[in-house]
Amino acid sequence: MNTDGATSWQAVRDEVLRRIREREWKPGDRIPHEADLARELGCARATVNRALRAVAEDGLIERRRRAGSRVALHPVRKARLDIPVIRVEVESRGLPYHFSLTSKSDELPPPAIRARMKTAPDTPLMHVVGLHMAGGRPHALEDRWIDADAVPGVRDADFSTISPNEWLVLNVPFEGGDIAFSATTATREDAAALDCAPGAALFLTERTTWHGTRILTTVRLLFAPGYRLHTEI
Amino acid sequence: MNTDGATSWQAVRDEVLRRIREREWKPGDRIPHEADLARELGCARATVNRALRAVAEDGLIERRRRAGSRVALHPVRKARLDIPVIRVEVESRGLPYHFSLTSKSDELPPPAIRARMKTAPDTPLMHVVGLHMAGGRPHALEDRWIDADAVPGVRDADFSTISPNEWLVLNVPFEGGDIAFSATTATREDAAALDCAPGAALFLTERTTWHGTRILTTVRLLFAPGYRLHTEI
Repeated sequence: MNTDGATSWQAVRDEVLRRIREREWKPGDRIPHEADLARELGCARATVNRALRAVAEDGLIERRRRAGSRVALHPVRKARLDIPVIRVEVESRGLPYHFSLTSKSDELPPPAIRARMKTAPDTPLMHVVGLHMAGGRPHALEDRWIDADAVPGVRDADFSTISPNEWLVLNVPFEGGDIAFSATTATREDAAALDCAPGAALFLTERTTWHGTRILTTVRLLFAPGYRLHTEI
Repeated sequence: MNTDGATSWQAVRDEVLRRIREREWKPGDRIPHEADLARELGCARATVNRALRAVAEDGLIERRRRAGSRVALHPVRKARLDIPVIRVEVESRGLPYHFSLTSKSDELPPPAIRARMKTAPDTPLMHVVGLHMAGGRPHALEDRWIDADAVPGVRDADFSTISPNEWLVLNVPFEGGDIAFSATTATREDAAALDCAPGAALFLTERTTWHGTRILTTVRLLFAPGYRLHTEI
């Protein structure tokens, strides 16, 4: 590898990939120290570091600050997903945007929501339903539950002028959450709201957001037929 | 903010969020230098830096190395999406995994694939179709095109023992790609392969992967009903 005296990080990466692929380094094996690899391959330690970082981004090795690097047991490719505010997403496609509030009330949540929000059985939550419109056509149906005690100011928010989706992004410091994407079949009710045929295949996003130990909100976003969530990796 | 002499980064973050929310700092506005903010708020510059980093991760400000930070015109929440090898995903759910190769041949791709792969009209590509099975049931249908000239070794890969999905992760240093998620309706053919009803709502992943300027592969992964893609953010 070092015949011309300048080993590129790409060459080191390819050598590392070869060893993983040919099982010289097996899943779970510890990878030699960077300094040792650099000596062996006749290159700078920084070059090894750059190469291992690339392989780690590919998900083939796991790096731990103190424990060193290991060959991943379960290779995972990592993608970054940008989740824009729905208004911004619609406007970036050149379409006028409008949020139409259907209902906002305090309600006792159904058991599935209560479990997700981890609230006591007799605690009412804020329930907001509304429709994101793009170019005068239904774009997404938002069905959201909010723990108003955990979100300062939300009781005074005017969701007839700003969607809960956008209000929360602007007002709540975000800490953690989980998100699930799936496909579902339009019920008669969904179809009426989204102006599509009952039984149509719809893209569904379910998101739960927390701050510290407190669950702030959980939302179901159901998109009109044809929606694609796109990202670069 | 500085009554007790120790301003936390969280307090700085909340103050920054307040200014953005109340439009003291408007979308597109340049944010004061860290040193100036630190002086104004009576805290260490590192504290301001930590706070601005958190707000940037929330997508509310955009940081540029030289040009300084600005209030984001389009707030975007960033999620990390881990995309495991399908075998690993299935096995992590405790189900036995099997890949069943349906066909592998060199073919002239249809125009849509040719456009995506950016190949010349008369260039055949490797076309691989197969079924990922979980616990003896269809899990996902993989329909993939590969530019075999751009992927060393792929002509010798034995896709009856390893899926193209897994072979590519192990063999190809990954550089970039794009990915789209959507919902689609099962055609009669999809339904036969995935053992579901025609018209069922199916989760679809479309992924194109490149290395440098070369497009390596494009794949359509169609999941059996009930599939959810889950991630933490």
